[in-house]
Amino acid sequence: MDGTIARVPLTSNHPLNDGRTAGSAVVRAFSADRPERLPVWFMRQAGRSLPEYRAAREGTGMLEACLRPELASELTLQPVRRHGVDAAIFFSDIVVPLLLAGVDVDIESGVGPVLGAPIRTADDVARLVDAGPLTPAALAPVTGGVELTVAELGRTPLIGFAGAPFTLAAYLVEGRPSRDHLAARTLMHADPATWAALTDWAADVTGAFLRAQVLAGASAVQLFDSWAGALSAADYVAHAAPASARALAQVADLGVKVVHFGTGTEHLLTAMREVGADVVGIDYRTPLDHANRLLGGAVPLQGNLDPALLAAPWDVLEAHVRDVVGRGSWAPAHVVNLGHGVPPGTDPGVLTRVVELVHRLGH
Amino acid sequence: MDGTIARVPLTSNHPLNDGRTAGSAVVRAFSADRPERLPVWFMRQAGRSLPEYRAAREGTGMLEACLRPELASELTLQPVRRHGVDAAIFFSDIVVPLLLAGVDVDIESGVGPVLGAPIRTADDVARLVDAGPLTPAALAPVTGGVELTVAELGRTPLIGFAGAPFTLAAYLVEGRPSRDHLAARTLMHADPATWAALTDWAADVTGAFLRAQVLAGASAVQLFDSWAGALSAADYVAHAAPASARALAQVADLGVKVVHFGTGTEHLLTAMREVGADVVGIDYRTPLDHANRLLGGAVPLQGNLDPALLAAPWDVLEAHVRDVVGRGSWAPAHVVNLGHGVPPGTDPGVLTRVVELVHRLGH
Repeated sequence: MDGTIARVPLTSNHPLNDGRTAGSAVVRAFSADRPERLPVWFMRQAGRSLPEYRAAREGTGMLEACLRPELASELTLQPVRRHGVDAAIFFSDIVVPLLLAGVDVDIESGVGPVLGAPIRTADDVARLVDAGPLTPAALAPVTGGVELTVAELGRTPLIGFAGAPFTLAAYLVEGRPSRDHLAARTLMHADPATWAALTDWAADVTGAFLRAQVLAGASAVQLFDSWAGALSAADYVAHAAPASARALAQVADLGVKVVHFGTGTEHLLTAMREVGADVVGIDYRTPLDHANRLLGGAVPLQGNLDPALLAAPWDVLEAHVRDVVGRGSWAPAHVVNLGHGVPPGTDPGVLTRVVELVHRLGH
Repeated sequence: MDGTIARVPLTSNHPLNDGRTAGSAVVRAFSADRPERLPVWFMRQAGRSLPEYRAAREGTGMLEACLRPELASELTLQPVRRHGVDAAIFFSDIVVPLLLAGVDVDIESGVGPVLGAPIRTADDVARLVDAGPLTPAALAPVTGGVELTVAELGRTPLIGFAGAPFTLAAYLVEGRPSRDHLAARTLMHADPATWAALTDWAADVTGAFLRAQVLAGASAVQLFDSWAGALSAADYVAHAAPASARALAQVADLGVKVVHFGTGTEHLLTAMREVGADVVGIDYRTPLDHANRLLGGAVPLQGNLDPALLAAPWDVLEAHVRDVVGRGSWAPAHVVNLGHGVPPGTDPGVLTRVVELVHRLGH
């Protein structure tokens, strides 16, 4: 099959997309089906916990690695080969689409995304908007990486990756990671029109990033709203949810399921579903049976092993995995995952053992 | 009145303590009474938002400032003089009692508390415990600062200050501030006996710190569990609450009310009350009417203005203050405060204007 085919839209009936992965445990669970196999993958499974990742990344900056299709694809595939997880997640960073849209951003080791200049005023936002939309041409490195990956994955689904507009806007306004996101939260109240223009712009950029991944072969997408937990429910609904809905609308016609995840968001779960998510990712703080009740028993769940327990003795971790799987069985469907990303110091052998245990428990 | 009198225990009937401040709006509200005046103070009101603070602190390290009685007292009094708030909170840091107990800790500017060596093993914890309890003699700089302060405050109550054992233990185990507190959360599951020994030790140290402040004249205390929001409710109840209860037991005979505060703790409010708190501090994420329902309508509340709105235009901030006061009126009593500390860049004139508005609204 030649490269041009992979670039046409892949709808739910398209043989390259759901025809290939529709029978996979992850895609079926995301569709509220109950596959025979209990599926499992790990947020940040493509990362520093793997020696082969550290070897492949050596000497290459984070954003450079994201934009080299062969390398991004290799890093995406490594954990699938090693752990036998049921899905890959595309190796990228939430600021990649900002960079491709022309924002001066880099990732400083040990710090996180740092901007050349924060975006704080109506003029700053107007300059972003005037620079024009994020084009398919600019997204070519991403599209290329996804195509290489899905060609290798076969029937294992690739999950597309993007940050939510609120979290992107928080980085843009603060200029760097922040605990309280005070400047961003001030802007949304002090100048709601500028805030809305900024988050709409971020929605279009991150929506285009998601759409490119799906068109290149991703079978589902996950939107990460890392900082949404900093908002009250009222602020989330008024000042974050509209832009998240706008971003997700950009993939609504493509027939893929959407997972929505944040941390510290127990008070936001229903609102995070209502922006257009099919599946809600639950952080380690909220037991899955409780999350299922909060969501009315109607939503497939993903999560929520506590990453802190990956470093505990196996008997403690095994009991925890069994507890999470038991609580998840109340939901319409459950994709086992962590309740946050894999810590860099994790023993990869432990992750493989968790996958084996989940697959045993799921039968 | 001479210095020796201030060193005898001040019970609820003691003329130097409740005899002096029992009629104050803050102490009455903490007792679920409805004072005529709606009381207000601000977490971190003694801090970098004030030019007189920056002048007085210049050239003096944070922990050194906490341990110089005249300076700590001056910094505590500054916001009372400037803003007319209804309470002072003793200027200190949650790691002060750790330092006085012999822990090698300093506060690095822009980072926070950093330990010489993290406490991670049973042997590390045993060495802490073997070093003996925190004595009244070691606490003399704190006692001295409190005595100087209450002598100036007259009928305005001083609130004593301490960190909760979980948050202290999280610093001790991580060795520095951390977003996820992974090492601490791993230890509580991997080695619960060592974790319990560590948090019991931290409880005794921080309990002694609180007791010293009350015996020297503080009219109430507030326990800050800054990182408790990182825990699930089950982990909080099993691995944090027992030590918090142990710390608060050290002031239970002194007849002062206890405020308990954390951020991102909506899922923990009832558990945080049950450790022995009389008042629950609510962060800006949870509307006070909702918090009041979660707590069964039975608990005085403190909070919860959003610090992000202190930098918004006055009409936006005024509407927010009115909303918070309205929602707080559902609780048995309400002490207006922020839902987190005063940001360092805050215009102090805005804080004074908020105090004036709250006092107008409270009539």
